[in-house]
Amino acid sequence: MQFLSDNAASVHPVIWAAMKAADAPDSPYDGDAVSQRLDEAFSAVFGRECAVLWVATGTAANCLALSAMVQPHGGVVCHREAHIEMDEGGAPGFYLHGAKLLLAGGASAKLAPSDIRAVIDPIRDDVHQVQPHAISITQASEYGCSYRPDEVAAIAELAKERGLGLHMDGARFANACAFLGGSAADAAGPVDALSFGFVKNGGMSAEAIVFFDTELADVARYRRKRAGHLQSKGRYLAAQLLAMLDGDVWLHNARTANSAALEIASVAGERLMHPVEANEIFLRCTPAERETLRSQNFDFYDWGDDAARLVAAWNTPQEHAMKLAQAIAAL
Amino acid sequence: MQFLSDNAASVHPVIWAAMKAADAPDSPYDGDAVSQRLDEAFSAVFGRECAVLWVATGTAANCLALSAMVQPHGGVVCHREAHIEMDEGGAPGFYLHGAKLLLAGGASAKLAPSDIRAVIDPIRDDVHQVQPHAISITQASEYGCSYRPDEVAAIAELAKERGLGLHMDGARFANACAFLGGSAADAAGPVDALSFGFVKNGGMSAEAIVFFDTELADVARYRRKRAGHLQSKGRYLAAQLLAMLDGDVWLHNARTANSAALEIASVAGERLMHPVEANEIFLRCTPAERETLRSQNFDFYDWGDDAARLVAAWNTPQEHAMKLAQAIAAL
Amino acid sequence: MQFLSDNAASVHPVIWAAMKAADAPDSPYDGDAVSQRLDEAFSAVFGRECAVLWVATGTAANCLALSAMVQPHGGVVCHREAHIEMDEGGAPGFYLHGAKLLLAGGASAKLAPSDIRAVIDPIRDDVHQVQPHAISITQASEYGCSYRPDEVAAIAELAKERGLGLHMDGARFANACAFLGGSAADAAGPVDALSFGFVKNGGMSAEAIVFFDTELADVARYRRKRAGHLQSKGRYLAAQLLAMLDGDVWLHNARTANSAALEIASVAGERLMHPVEANEIFLRCTPAERETLRSQNFDFYDWGDDAARLVAAWNTPQEHAMKLAQAIAAL
Amino acid sequence: MQFLSDNAASVHPVIWAAMKAADAPDSPYDGDAVSQRLDEAFSAVFGRECAVLWVATGTAANCLALSAMVQPHGGVVCHREAHIEMDEGGAPGFYLHGAKLLLAGGASAKLAPSDIRAVIDPIRDDVHQVQPHAISITQASEYGCSYRPDEVAAIAELAKERGLGLHMDGARFANACAFLGGSAADAAGPVDALSFGFVKNGGMSAEAIVFFDTELADVARYRRKRAGHLQSKGRYLAAQLLAMLDGDVWLHNARTANSAALEIASVAGERLMHPVEANEIFLRCTPAERETLRSQNFDFYDWGDDAARLVAAWNTPQEHAMKLAQAIAAL
Repeated sequence: MQFLSDNAASVHPVIWAAMKAADAPDSPYDGDAVSQRLDEAFSAVFGRECAVLWVATGTAANCLALSAMVQPHGGVVCHREAHIEMDEGGAPGFYLHGAKLLLAGGASAKLAPSDIRAVIDPIRDDVHQVQPHAISITQASEYGCSYRPDEVAAIAELAKERGLGLHMDGARFANACAFLGGSAADAAGPVDALSFGFVKNGGMSAEAIVFFDTELADVARYRRKRAGHLQSKGRYLAAQLLAMLDGDVWLHNARTANSAALEIASVAGERLMHPVEANEIFLRCTPAERETLRSQNFDFYDWGDDAARLVAAWNTPQEHAMKLAQAIAAL
Repeated sequence: MQFLSDNAASVHPVIWAAMKAADAPDSPYDGDAVSQRLDEAFSAVFGRECAVLWVATGTAANCLALSAMVQPHGGVVCHREAHIEMDEGGAPGFYLHGAKLLLAGGASAKLAPSDIRAVIDPIRDDVHQVQPHAISITQASEYGCSYRPDEVAAIAELAKERGLGLHMDGARFANACAFLGGSAADAAGPVDALSFGFVKNGGMSAEAIVFFDTELADVARYRRKRAGHLQSKGRYLAAQLLAMLDGDVWLHNARTANSAALEIASVAGERLMHPVEANEIFLRCTPAERETLRSQNFDFYDWGDDAARLVAAWNTPQEHAMKLAQAIAAL
Repeated sequence: MQFLSDNAASVHPVIWAAMKAADAPDSPYDGDAVSQRLDEAFSAVFGRECAVLWVATGTAANCLALSAMVQPHGGVVCHREAHIEMDEGGAPGFYLHGAKLLLAGGASAKLAPSDIRAVIDPIRDDVHQVQPHAISITQASEYGCSYRPDEVAAIAELAKERGLGLHMDGARFANACAFLGGSAADAAGPVDALSFGFVKNGGMSAEAIVFFDTELADVARYRRKRAGHLQSKGRYLAAQLLAMLDGDVWLHNARTANSAALEIASVAGERLMHPVEANEIFLRCTPAERETLRSQNFDFYDWGDDAARLVAAWNTPQEHAMKLAQAIAAL
Repeated sequence: MQFLSDNAASVHPVIWAAMKAADAPDSPYDGDAVSQRLDEAFSAVFGRECAVLWVATGTAANCLALSAMVQPHGGVVCHREAHIEMDEGGAPGFYLHGAKLLLAGGASAKLAPSDIRAVIDPIRDDVHQVQPHAISITQASEYGCSYRPDEVAAIAELAKERGLGLHMDGARFANACAFLGGSAADAAGPVDALSFGFVKNGGMSAEAIVFFDTELADVARYRRKRAGHLQSKGRYLAAQLLAMLDGDVWLHNARTANSAALEIASVAGERLMHPVEANEIFLRCTPAERETLRSQNFDFYDWGDDAARLVAAWNTPQEHAMKLAQAIAAL
């Protein structure tokens, strides 16, 4: 039973159907009819105007969004365990032409305004030190914790006060949104740009960069091509995004995954390292306990020596979740 | 009738079948079983060992291949009408960290050793001038002309003599290969790396970077992730490539496209600006003549004021080609 | 007798005196009293407000100025024989993070608005092609020709119309200014930034970047430090600049050099490849003729097979110029 | 009395004399007779072959040296308080094209092999994480502490074992060397490249990059020009370096500064935050105590709330050091 990664899951049926439906000749790149519908579709979801670019990976989404906000001599405040710092193979350094990640702490890989201030306040306003140009937060965080609307608002206020851009890495935005009650506008808050992830949530190869500051999109459009991310048959990516938005499949998928995670969490008690506010569980357990779980056919990653990471996907069977819950309870 | 771009065509049925067949959970990124088969499959096609990376676009393929050969302070000799110079939105500047394209002439957008020497011989070997680190040639060229094996060999010899890497942009490599008789090894010759294109030839979103110098692949692997081109569900890309190689679909598709182009070329006589050695026709014709063709429902790009570019695709109906030939003959 | 390069000349006595005068402890970097006087001193010379940064080389001056105007995905229109294209070892690619030089023609290495339009008008406004962000012109040009005020004004108008920054490489700005009558304001015209050269004109190691758009200086200040060009004992550079401005030494030096060049040019007639409007002469002459000159102890560079480049410096003795004129007349 | 920074000090008389002696026409850039003598002169100092480039700043020296060792997708292990991380305005990100600084701890800003291993051992050998390409250590460290020869050797062994380049930032190399007994070879140990600082030690505007791996110099030479650091009248920089080596002025100057620092340290006892092994003293003292010192005309930087940084220079009068010692003793 698969709790390794939501990346490893297969693709939702609506994706296949939409891609097939797009399989006729059309304008190349993003000039096709499907791509042209994205801005409107996402604007409806968020209840405010936005400009949307498809792209194949979350890494590209994050870095293209940030590249429109940050000059090469600037910096981006992010959590020291953020994906852009830990897992993107140095992509921010590449896309931002050497700009620097300014690392902050914060419980459960979430940033509070005080965490951000602790990083930027000591920076002297002189040319010897890299100045912050933007903040990047992750919704849900690397530890599966979701920012509440007032938490995002407080960070946005700080960003505005200091003249910084605000980016949200939403690789699991759908899961956060489902956890928070289902309003995309609430879950995103007043950020300037959102990397809205679909691949971990049943998509195949399309993520959306949602620019609420639409001038940033005009820059990112050039940067996307320059990064080799403007696919020539872009309609197959656009179709995936629309299929997920249509009828709120994205939200439904995320609820399924979250629900499986909560089922498991419900028995974990003190073993939980972080609140379960999305589809990930970080579970304290010994190597022997992990061995026990694996012998029962559960697949997952170790998290250091004394913990396991368990991730539910859009198609995790309720039965698997229940079995895992029982197995954990029995440890 | 569509002669606009092979980019605009739909996707070959084997692609869909292979992608569906890959639609089960597997390791993320390129750790899956399908991606793991690429090296072997391409080595069989070329009859020599190679290391292969999938990537979503030709721009990424070209630039990642070159980034493994060229230091940031170096240069790449290419034709002044090469795709990397004209149509990639500055991607080489990005991927090569500011390395310079050193532009050469050459009939039909092909380079001869003398064209290359005309560019590199005047470069003083001092720090004031950008030194060449690599050569990039395009097979088939921007004007649909194919390098013969001895032509590639002569360039490779020059490259070796001067210590330069040799890259081949094969966005339409299949078409060149079909024109030259069908041997991939002959069409590629002794280059260090080949961007082997599939998207223009019936694929959806997967190109192959084929490294014959396999040490370059070890660098490019890091650069691919760093560029956000390592898709998390890579098996859907790998599956496309294997499907195209299996039973030589790639070659069959290219032959169909070439054959349509030749049908059209057979009536064009003096109107042909370049020999037709792949699936593209550059046709001298007046604005009025283009109007006439369009009124008969043929779709294509203008090429400057006095010419048209006509591109046949893997699925161009023979009938469309014949009709276009008749229409041209009747101009 | 030295006509090789104005770079090779020694340093003017006022430079030494001013550097010695600055040889007391003071704030490091550019916080010292001498550096703090630059803005005012240059604003007086140009009769309008400007912000000035010292830097050690013309290459750094050009590239830092441009880096404040051009985004990494943009381009800079310049002459195909401009110093930034030909002689800076790829520095623009480095400083502009891969932005592209868009090469234009133009007699005597000067650009006219029509030359610029010929480059930028064909650029489609789409993401596949690098868009121009700035124009760079050279005063005096690589061939020692000076832009007249109305010529600069016409280019500035075009720049404004297209939303492009305008930079002037003034490695020999002093010579152009002397030729044009001595008004720095006239010689610079309405450019946004000027690399004002002093090293070729009797300085030791200080050039000025003069920002008439002072917001650009705020960016360039960070970029200067980031490029390792913020020297810790900056007062020795600032002192050089002030010494040259004081009593118009810069203009006096340039007049001396120009006058020597004109002396030589006066006998050259048909041999002149370009008008002599600064301190450089490009002289048609055979290898045998060059041999004759060298045998008389004149030192200079060949310029291709059939010409010589002769450069007069701030301290070229009038007698040397006269002797060279006689020698040329006698060829 | 000046204890603010060795950067703020004036220039040693031999520097002026040597620069004046170089004030005749010579080949531009580094083709002059003085620059040509550097390799030999430094090889004599270190007792082994090296290739030497002059450059105007320590930031440029550090970053050019590293740029020859580190690919853009790699990383550099350094102390989290290293100058390249804290005080160079993001220059490493610029010069290394986005490569990453991998930050280690270590007492008194020195790295031990175990500190380095704590950073690099957890890095998985996969493309998602930035791999180390080099190590940079600082001699003397940011806190004025010197690596003993066996400490450098142990780091070099680790570097070799892991295939990493090894760079030494020697902004205060002379002070470390003086402290360690005066052998440059011992103080540098088996590093691949050393930024040998002179400006803080009585120089004006010249630092040396000493490449013991001379192949790195061939790369750095191109990078220096590309960074705008190849000054056209380089002989004035080369002359400074030779003047400092001649008769061991560099060592004499460093001994004077160290001796002043030791004088002060001798009374500081428990107030010393770090051993005094060069020319810097980090002194625990309250704001009131700092006020007392300043009222006696001592000039220095605060170091956080509860400390002061006092730096002796090559020309700090022994009398000033004694007075400061007395003042501290009297606190």
